[in-house]
Amino acid sequence: MSVEHIFSHRHILGLADLAPADIAFVLQTAESFKEISQRSIKKVPTLRGKTVINLFFEPSTRTRLSFEIAAKRMSADTFNISSAGSSAVKGESMVDTARNLAAMNPDCIIIRHSHSGAPELLARHIKASVINAGDGAHEHPSQALLDLMTVREHKGRIEGLKVAIIGDITHSRVAHSNIIGFTKMGAEVRVAGPATLIPPGIAAMGARHCATVREAVRDADVVMALRIQQERQLDPLLPSLREYAIFYGITPAIMALARPDAIIMHPGPINRGIELDPALADGSRSVILDQVTNGVAVRMALLYLIMGGPE
Amino acid sequence: MSVEHIFSHRHILGLADLAPADIAFVLQTAESFKEISQRSIKKVPTLRGKTVINLFFEPSTRTRLSFEIAAKRMSADTFNISSAGSSAVKGESMVDTARNLAAMNPDCIIIRHSHSGAPELLARHIKASVINAGDGAHEHPSQALLDLMTVREHKGRIEGLKVAIIGDITHSRVAHSNIIGFTKMGAEVRVAGPATLIPPGIAAMGARHCATVREAVRDADVVMALRIQQERQLDPLLPSLREYAIFYGITPAIMALARPDAIIMHPGPINRGIELDPALADGSRSVILDQVTNGVAVRMALLYLIMGGPE
Amino acid sequence: MSVEHIFSHRHILGLADLAPADIAFVLQTAESFKEISQRSIKKVPTLRGKTVINLFFEPSTRTRLSFEIAAKRMSADTFNISSAGSSAVKGESMVDTARNLAAMNPDCIIIRHSHSGAPELLARHIKASVINAGDGAHEHPSQALLDLMTVREHKGRIEGLKVAIIGDITHSRVAHSNIIGFTKMGAEVRVAGPATLIPPGIAAMGARHCATVREAVRDADVVMALRIQQERQLDPLLPSLREYAIFYGITPAIMALARPDAIIMHPGPINRGIELDPALADGSRSVILDQVTNGVAVRMALLYLIMGGPE
Repeated sequence: MSVEHIFSHRHILGLADLAPADIAFVLQTAESFKEISQRSIKKVPTLRGKTVINLFFEPSTRTRLSFEIAAKRMSADTFNISSAGSSAVKGESMVDTARNLAAMNPDCIIIRHSHSGAPELLARHIKASVINAGDGAHEHPSQALLDLMTVREHKGRIEGLKVAIIGDITHSRVAHSNIIGFTKMGAEVRVAGPATLIPPGIAAMGARHCATVREAVRDADVVMALRIQQERQLDPLLPSLREYAIFYGITPAIMALARPDAIIMHPGPINRGIELDPALADGSRSVILDQVTNGVAVRMALLYLIMGGPE
Repeated sequence: MSVEHIFSHRHILGLADLAPADIAFVLQTAESFKEISQRSIKKVPTLRGKTVINLFFEPSTRTRLSFEIAAKRMSADTFNISSAGSSAVKGESMVDTARNLAAMNPDCIIIRHSHSGAPELLARHIKASVINAGDGAHEHPSQALLDLMTVREHKGRIEGLKVAIIGDITHSRVAHSNIIGFTKMGAEVRVAGPATLIPPGIAAMGARHCATVREAVRDADVVMALRIQQERQLDPLLPSLREYAIFYGITPAIMALARPDAIIMHPGPINRGIELDPALADGSRSVILDQVTNGVAVRMALLYLIMGGPE
Repeated sequence: MSVEHIFSHRHILGLADLAPADIAFVLQTAESFKEISQRSIKKVPTLRGKTVINLFFEPSTRTRLSFEIAAKRMSADTFNISSAGSSAVKGESMVDTARNLAAMNPDCIIIRHSHSGAPELLARHIKASVINAGDGAHEHPSQALLDLMTVREHKGRIEGLKVAIIGDITHSRVAHSNIIGFTKMGAEVRVAGPATLIPPGIAAMGARHCATVREAVRDADVVMALRIQQERQLDPLLPSLREYAIFYGITPAIMALARPDAIIMHPGPINRGIELDPALADGSRSVILDQVTNGVAVRMALLYLIMGGPE
C-alpha cells in the first residue's frame, strides 16, 4: 500500500458516508486486488471462514454474481437469499429478518432492496457488516466505486475531470452515488435528461443541471449513459422510447462534442439504441466491460476492508 | 465429550425415532460446536469432501440457510434444489427423484416437503443420510432439538420443567416434534389453542390439553407461541386473527401467570401482535434469537453425527 | 492414462465437433475420475481457484446439479444463474450477457438454452470455455458422453453394437447427440417413433429409420427410450399418451425382441408407463441410474480437460 490510511467503516451504505481519503483507499486496494482475477488460480485465503450473505429483494444477475465471485475468490463462504422463497413471503418484517440472519453469526450481509434506507435499517439492528447493493433510488455505492476506479484507470486521475451523466437522474441510485463520488473526488459533474426526471437540489449535490445533452457533454472527459428503467417509471414522466433515443440517447454526433479522448460508461444492462448507440457501446471509447471487471475488484476490496482489513 | 454414547442413526426423520440418550448426545455435541460460529474464522475441516443437498419443496429462508451455514462451517459442499426449476415440474415421482439424486453419491439429503412421510420415503430408497427439515404436519426434528438446546441453556435442565405450547397444534410439525422431545426428556408439556386446532390423542403423546391458555401457562417455565400459518388452514377452523390475538395471543398479562423466570420461545417468523405481543418478542425473557443461533449448532451436530461421527 | 492423446478443444458445443479419439479420451478420463465420487472425502484440488458459472435458461435439476457436483468435487468455485431473476428479464441480449459474464473472468460457462446455437454464440464472444448443457433440439453432448460411457462400461465396447433409440427424435437433443456419438464410435444406430417425429435426413446422420419399434429393437444391444416432452410438442404431431404407450412404449414384450443381454437406457426424468414400462425401468437390465452416476464422472472429465488438462 502506498498510502497509509485507517479504513474505519464497518458498513458500506453509501458514498455520502465516505471521506475522499476513504474512497481513494478503496480504489487503491481494489487496484491491488484486480490481478487476482487474472490468475490461473483465482483464489486467495484472505476471508477464509467468513460468512457472506447475499440478500437480494430485487432481481439481479450481475451485481449479485459480482459480489459472490468477489467473496469466493477471497475464500469466504457465500449464501444467496432472493425474495422468491424467502421469509418475506411469510410476511416477516425487515427488522425481524435482519435479527434472525444476525443470529446465525454472518460476517457480512449484502443487501439489495426496493426501499431506500433498507440497508441502513439493517445495519442499525445487526452486528455484521452491511453492504448496500442498491436501495431504491437512493445509493448504489459499489457501482459508483467501480465507476471511479474505471475512470482513474483510463484517465490517471479523477480530480478536474468533466463528467456528464445523462438520463433519468431522479430514479437512478447509480446517478446519485456517482454524483456524490465524482464530486467528492474533485470532478465537475453535469447532468442532463428529461426535465421531469431531474430532481430538484442537483446544485446542492454539487452537480450542474444542463438544459440539453449537448451542453452536458461538451468538452466532457467522461460520458455516462444511464439505463432507462421502464419498470421504475410512471408513464406520464417518460417520453416515448423513440423520443428518448432522439433527444437523450448518446450517439456519435453527441460524442463529437466531448473531448476526443472521452470515455463512454454505462452501468448495464444496456438498452441498445435507446440510451446508447450500439456502435458506441462496442466502440474503442467504451469502457463498459472494464466497469464490470473492476466491479469484482472493488467488491473484493470492500469485503476485505470491512471484514478482513489490513493488519 | 463428557458422555460416552454411540449415536447409531443414519437418518434424522423425527424425534419419535430418537432415544432420550440420543437426544442428550445431540445437544451435548451441539453445545461443543456452538463456539465455532463465534470465531473469527468460522470453519473446521470436519466434513470436507462431503456432499450435502438441500432439497426444499416448500419455501424457506431460515431453515435452509441454517443447514447450509452449518454444512459449510464444517467444510461440506452444499447444493440447493428448490421446487421451482426442479424435476418436480417435469412430473417426476419423489422416488425417482430420490434415486436419481442418490446416483450422484451425496452423503446427506436435507428435505422439506409438504407431505408427511416424504423424508421417510426418501430414506427408504437411498443410501445417503436423510434429515427431515419439516414434512407436512408431521415432524421438524432439528427445530425441536434447537428448542431443547435453548431451554437447557437457559434453565440448566429439561427434566421436570413445565412447557406450554400455544396455538394451532394440529397443523404444526414444530409442536409435534416438541411434544415428543420435551416429553422424552422428562418435561411436562401442556398445549392450548382453538379447540378445532387441537388434535385428538394429545394425552397419548404424553401432553396435557388445557382448556385455556391461562391454564396452560400457569407456573410454566417455558412458553412457546406457535406461528399462525394462515396458508395451512381452512378458514372454518380458524378464528379471525383479531379473535386469535385476544384469546390465544401471548401477552404480558398471560405471562404474568407463568413463573417469574419463564422464557418465551417462537419458531419464527413471528406474526407480531397476533400470536405474540411485540414487547414480549423483544423483551428480556425472549430467547427467540438464541433459538436461531442454536439452530446452526444443532444442525452442525446432526450433520457431524450422521456423516462424520466421533472416531 | 493408457492412451496418449492431446485434447485440444476449449469448448464442448456438440459431439459433431469431437473426433472419435477425443470421445474415447473423454470416456477414459471419466472412468479414471469415477472413483473420486465413491470416496469418503469426495474432493480433489485439481480445479481449485477456477470459476465455473452455470447459466441455465431452462429449468433443470439433474443436469445443473450434476455439473455443480462435478465442479465442486474438483474444488472449482461454482455460481448459478437461472433465467428467473437474471438480466434476461431486463431484456439484455444473449451477446451482452455473455460479454458481461466474461468480464468477470470466469474459466467456464455451462449453458442451457431453449435456442439451438446459443452455446456457440456464447463461445464466439468470450474467452472462457463453454459447455453446452442442452440447446433447443440441437445437442446435449455431456448426456451422449455419459450414455457412451455407460454402454462401454456394461458392454466392454461400443463398436459393432446395435443401438435402438425410440421416441420423438425430431425434438430430442439427446437423440441427436447420441446418434452422432454412437455412429462415430462405430455402433449401428436405429431410430423409431411416430412418423411425424422422425426428422428427414436420419440416413445422412448415419442412422437407420425403422418403420416400427419392433424392427428397431430386434437384436439390439442397447435400447434407449426417449422422454416424451409434452411441453415441446405441438399437439397435432403427437399421438395421445395412451396411444404412444401402446405403439412406442418399451415393454417386456418389445424387449423380448432385443438381445438377451440388452441394456435399457433413458435420459430421465422418466414418464413411467408411457415411454417405458415401470418394471423395465427398475429391472435388472436397466442402467438408468448408472447413467446418472456416470454423468458426474463425464462432467468432471470435461471440466478437467477444457480447464485443467493433463500437464
